[in-house]
Amino acid sequence: MLSPAFVTRLRALLPPDAVLFEREDVVPFESDGLSAYRNTPDVVALPETEAQVAAVLRLCHAEQVAVVARGAGTGLAAGALPVDGAVLLVLAKLNRIKAIDPLARTAVVEPGVRNLAISEAAAPHGLYYAPDPSSQIACSIGGNVAENSGGVHCLKYGLTVHNVLKLRALTIAGEVLELGSDALDAPGYDLLALLTGSEGMLAVITEVTVKLLPRPERAQVVLAAFDDVARAGAAVGDIIAAGVIPAGLEMMDRLAIEAAEAFVHAGYPLAEALLLVEVDGVNEEVSDDIATVRQVLKAAGATEIRTAEDDAQRAKFWAGRKAAFPAVGRLAPDYYCMDGTIPRSQLPHVLTRIAAMSAEYGLAVANVFHAGDGNLHPLILFDANRPGELEKAETFGGRILELCVEVGGTITGEHGVGVEKIKQMCAQFASPELQRFHDVKAAFDPGRLLNPGKAVPELHRCAEWGAMHVSAGRLPHPELPRF
Amino acid sequence: MLSPAFVTRLRALLPPDAVLFEREDVVPFESDGLSAYRNTPDVVALPETEAQVAAVLRLCHAEQVAVVARGAGTGLAAGALPVDGAVLLVLAKLNRIKAIDPLARTAVVEPGVRNLAISEAAAPHGLYYAPDPSSQIACSIGGNVAENSGGVHCLKYGLTVHNVLKLRALTIAGEVLELGSDALDAPGYDLLALLTGSEGMLAVITEVTVKLLPRPERAQVVLAAFDDVARAGAAVGDIIAAGVIPAGLEMMDRLAIEAAEAFVHAGYPLAEALLLVEVDGVNEEVSDDIATVRQVLKAAGATEIRTAEDDAQRAKFWAGRKAAFPAVGRLAPDYYCMDGTIPRSQLPHVLTRIAAMSAEYGLAVANVFHAGDGNLHPLILFDANRPGELEKAETFGGRILELCVEVGGTITGEHGVGVEKIKQMCAQFASPELQRFHDVKAAFDPGRLLNPGKAVPELHRCAEWGAMHVSAGRLPHPELPRF
Repeated sequence: MLSPAFVTRLRALLPPDAVLFEREDVVPFESDGLSAYRNTPDVVALPETEAQVAAVLRLCHAEQVAVVARGAGTGLAAGALPVDGAVLLVLAKLNRIKAIDPLARTAVVEPGVRNLAISEAAAPHGLYYAPDPSSQIACSIGGNVAENSGGVHCLKYGLTVHNVLKLRALTIAGEVLELGSDALDAPGYDLLALLTGSEGMLAVITEVTVKLLPRPERAQVVLAAFDDVARAGAAVGDIIAAGVIPAGLEMMDRLAIEAAEAFVHAGYPLAEALLLVEVDGVNEEVSDDIATVRQVLKAAGATEIRTAEDDAQRAKFWAGRKAAFPAVGRLAPDYYCMDGTIPRSQLPHVLTRIAAMSAEYGLAVANVFHAGDGNLHPLILFDANRPGELEKAETFGGRILELCVEVGGTITGEHGVGVEKIKQMCAQFASPELQRFHDVKAAFDPGRLLNPGKAVPELHRCAEWGAMHVSAGRLPHPELPRF
Repeated sequence: MLSPAFVTRLRALLPPDAVLFEREDVVPFESDGLSAYRNTPDVVALPETEAQVAAVLRLCHAEQVAVVARGAGTGLAAGALPVDGAVLLVLAKLNRIKAIDPLARTAVVEPGVRNLAISEAAAPHGLYYAPDPSSQIACSIGGNVAENSGGVHCLKYGLTVHNVLKLRALTIAGEVLELGSDALDAPGYDLLALLTGSEGMLAVITEVTVKLLPRPERAQVVLAAFDDVARAGAAVGDIIAAGVIPAGLEMMDRLAIEAAEAFVHAGYPLAEALLLVEVDGVNEEVSDDIATVRQVLKAAGATEIRTAEDDAQRAKFWAGRKAAFPAVGRLAPDYYCMDGTIPRSQLPHVLTRIAAMSAEYGLAVANVFHAGDGNLHPLILFDANRPGELEKAETFGGRILELCVEVGGTITGEHGVGVEKIKQMCAQFASPELQRFHDVKAAFDPGRLLNPGKAVPELHRCAEWGAMHVSAGRLPHPELPRF
């Protein structure tokens, strides 16, 4: 619990009403998008300028008070979960778009600017910001940087790290770091990439310069139905192997299709699996790619193939996919959204294994995911009011992530580690890598004040959890001590 | 000087002939591609396996002996310059291509594999490795990772960091780090990006998994002549603004054109500046882009525009550019190749300023460079045998780099900092960033044994050099102490 004296000092640094500490004011900040984890914050600070953020950090640094930075709170791994005795530093009011340069194709924005607002501001110039997490209406760019967010289009256009040119960030001591450059590369260690995806544990971002891309001349989408999930998974690899890099390549299984149909009536064929393949680019390129995609889907055993003929039909094809998460949410009182990645070639194997585990645990799973980049989002359905079901769902989810690691993938594609997946980090990494993570953390924040307890497990915790490092089916490096 | 006892212990770890210490054996390793800097190594180790590399590192770690890792030695910033009392660890014998996976489009290679050898091995599958430094016949992938190398095609296809999926590396203590994943993203801090471009100061790379790309269906090049360098510079921005991302966009000025013509007779028009604009992709896309490029070049005031009609003509268009460096080398006893980047919009201004400085110093400059990504390579001509000319060339070069920083660019595009540009790092970065670099270094190598004295200046050295931090024309952060 923070002392009243500390809160008084904090209030002196910020405008009136920018520090919340009454219970009814702070409760709305008790969780991020992963509401299974909740913790009432002691105090919430809402600075409006970088100078105010720096002042808060300097105070916390001087008093050795922890700081949890938070954007829009749409994260799905409890990365922004409040920590006892810490200031919850909400950056939502730093929401100015400072510059759009249509010639250099860049936008300079504050961290609280919503992802979609960047594309809206760039639209008059025929430009947009490519990474598009499902939450893009609400999520803010600072959080996107902290989690290295992806989205439907990241297969072709990359993750956040590939679309950010410069960062301005504050250390816990309140010092300014200016990282990256307007050019392709910058000298020195790549601290811009290091901060991207660091889940608020190294520094607090106060300004982001993003790349903007020209809107493609044309985008078109193909929908294909399959009577077998594994066959649809194999088709994904076939499309890439044929030389097409789709702008989006999404997959839904039967449960997800049924839920989406019941919810938004997109007119999807009822099948074991659907693929949505969007291609974009110049006109002729799109025509060529659509022809190739249709051919590959046919050869891969699709039972039905439809091509959207106009933008209205394209929007309808996407409607079911975009509504899939809330649609699945209607099937059961609770669902647990996983986020692992696997090499594309492993899709048929992993989907079959998940189905077998679903039977084993007696919990239904709907699959809706970014198939093109092997980023799975199994939604495990459960009822938290039934004793033991939450724990069962968590165990099942953990096993899915370990399966991802086992086949050469990772425990997170775009949601981050946060609190949720900290145990699985013990499966993902061996102790030399985890030790480097801790040492890098100490290089920025030796007092461990920024977002403590998140994302990187202590080595002794891995030992307690009894986790074993599995990497592509190999045992731990024999020369290293096991933890 | 290393003790005979140490050398004996080192020899015991490696095959016979894998440790060189006689003067005539080690002299060939006295410099990398920047031969103005030379230092005879005490001892050269040539391990053949990762286990041998680990054994060397463990010995050096135990005895607190420094290690300079080196690949093919083609670097241009003296990053692989031997250090007194250190082992020069040459990785050239780790040169196996371990796997090519045409479906996943990846290659797993050892660090000593030459850049071009990867594309050669991938060619039967219609694939290639995109980053193509000018030295690609000779340079090795480990060095490419250490310097985050670019090349003609990096405007469209990215730098090394954008084309590497996984790294296996050894810490100075000989521990294995496995970084990255087969998927788009990996959890934890992005140590893969951090190691890429770290100039051998954080870890020693022992295995690289690179992305392979399908060979484009077609590539075509346009050559345009201009009677004014600044006008050619402005045309570069116009091409990008028109929505074309060329696979290569190179510029040469009059001195470079004349030198290249005299050397390889490429048939270039004699002009103040030439642009070479290559586009690639599917057939129709290339046709569209070529039409757009020709139109933009005409509007930008090109005095002559030629389009290569076939591959033979395309090769001829490129011949002059590819031979430009050795061709310029025939104009004067010595030249000093700079490597800075600037925002494209600053090209006309910076080229004009360089011409003015050339007159001021009385040293001719030939410009041959990657104009599309604003990566300048001014070649300053001088005669080292004339007293004071080397120093004058170095001062001139330093001022060019400071000009790059002043207009919002960087002091290195693709060659790295090494020894050559360590002073300019004081202009590029303020003390909080430099301090973070040192702290990150300590997270990997607290004893500062890996490539000591390179790339990141000590803060007190910046003070001694009297450098001032200039960033986009702004003064240092007012809240920070000046160094």
